[in-house]
Amino acid sequence: MAVKFPKVCVAGVGLIGGSVALAMKRLHLADEIIGVGRGLENLQDAQRLGIIDRYTHQVQEGVEGADLVVLGTPVRAMPELVKKSAGYFKKGVILTDVGSTKQKLIEQILPILEPGVNFVPGHPVAGRELSGARYSDPELFQGRWTIIVPTRKSPDQAILQIKELWLALGARVEIMPAEIHDQVLAAVSHLPHLVAYGLVGALLALDRQTPMLRFSAGGFRDFIRIAGSSPEMWRDICLENREPILAALDRYGEELARLKQMVKQEQADELEKYFAQCRRIKERVEKGHG
Amino acid sequence: MAVKFPKVCVAGVGLIGGSVALAMKRLHLADEIIGVGRGLENLQDAQRLGIIDRYTHQVQEGVEGADLVVLGTPVRAMPELVKKSAGYFKKGVILTDVGSTKQKLIEQILPILEPGVNFVPGHPVAGRELSGARYSDPELFQGRWTIIVPTRKSPDQAILQIKELWLALGARVEIMPAEIHDQVLAAVSHLPHLVAYGLVGALLALDRQTPMLRFSAGGFRDFIRIAGSSPEMWRDICLENREPILAALDRYGEELARLKQMVKQEQADELEKYFAQCRRIKERVEKGHG
Repeated sequence: MAVKFPKVCVAGVGLIGGSVALAMKRLHLADEIIGVGRGLENLQDAQRLGIIDRYTHQVQEGVEGADLVVLGTPVRAMPELVKKSAGYFKKGVILTDVGSTKQKLIEQILPILEPGVNFVPGHPVAGRELSGARYSDPELFQGRWTIIVPTRKSPDQAILQIKELWLALGARVEIMPAEIHDQVLAAVSHLPHLVAYGLVGALLALDRQTPMLRFSAGGFRDFIRIAGSSPEMWRDICLENREPILAALDRYGEELARLKQMVKQEQADELEKYFAQCRRIKERVEKGHG
Repeated sequence: MAVKFPKVCVAGVGLIGGSVALAMKRLHLADEIIGVGRGLENLQDAQRLGIIDRYTHQVQEGVEGADLVVLGTPVRAMPELVKKSAGYFKKGVILTDVGSTKQKLIEQILPILEPGVNFVPGHPVAGRELSGARYSDPELFQGRWTIIVPTRKSPDQAILQIKELWLALGARVEIMPAEIHDQVLAAVSHLPHLVAYGLVGALLALDRQTPMLRFSAGGFRDFIRIAGSSPEMWRDICLENREPILAALDRYGEELARLKQMVKQEQADELEKYFAQCRRIKERVEKGHG
């Protein structure tokens, strides 16, 4: 039988929160969805588009009586929302989130969680270059991974329900510890963004000496697109996932030094071998075998 | 009056050489185009598709009597072609190329050039992830930059003719010294590719410790695409443009160190400012103002 939550609260109705809500409504996995947020226009959009049934600016009002609470705000705003909701959570509620970093968040939330609240953090690994409820897409999670990160306040039954929810939304689900989650995301997502930001930053500096950006072709334009993501979101990710990101940057620095050495010493065969190995990975990842 | 070359030889009928030939034929800028190459199938494709009128495996035969010779092979194969053609060039011929590095190439070709050969190197800065004559596209250069790099064997009249040729093919033309060309390309094209290769290499190594590549989303997939370019071509570029690439890698290393410091010291405002500055460049480049 499919998972179902009579009353759902989505606190932070952005692209991800909104897409979760919209997909749940389409699939009849909720009787009522209440949106919580600060921006009136965004909440009105969400209601008009049928993403949520009603909205409130007061998180206490949103969580009251809810069977499922989904935190969809930037990660650094989540602990405050939980703190404010103290005394309003329904006993047995499942609290989850869609944030892209986990360990620090869990450390902050566990101590302020009242008894009877089950906390099952989650992270749908889906692109998010757009923001706002109006970009919500019920298909956003189809075939994408959602990582569930159990805490000591995640009973098996609650983990199972969150897992079934994501499966119903079309996602593939993996369960892993917060530490591993943060390391993996630092490598496959946060590092690429920093690498792209660094490149754009370097070219901006070089362009001030010799105007050159207009000659940028294929390769560099992809970097520019990546570096067009939300500055606030990436600032928060850097602060929230500091240690794994620093470790990933170190590992990357070693790799770049190795490549540089090959160029310096004109190691033709090694360079070609290195590039060919990178090309093979392309086929592997594009086939989805990762 | 439009530029016109009665007899044209394209030595190396790949994506770029083939696109030049096809565009020249469509625009009636040549009476006859002879393709030179080693691969029979590729040359047959080119002839069948109307890209060239006929072909030969002997470069001497191709250049004989030609008014324009376009070198379209990998850069490192070009000097040998010129050497082989000694004694066969028509007096007053214009020799040009479409290679993506310039200074070393020019140093190698100038001493072996016989009197009466005008040498006007060029570089159409166009994407080239596909290879082979069958991908030729006469529109490939529309609105893209072609950089012309005059040498001491480039009379003004020859430069003008090559410039008019590229303008006729729809390109925007910039003239610059070889040294600047190589620095600019090292920054806007070669560096981004090495940065992407290094990232893919680092993730391959990390994936062997903790399988993680399947969780890669948006950002990283762009890198994988960039790192899927031809290993042979990028090996050659690294060797041909070694010094400017090493300088660009150093500059990038400094930038990455700066970003790392901001993360290490949790400089929230500086990070956000840095990311926001990178986002602004996105709009500038996407509008084509570079």
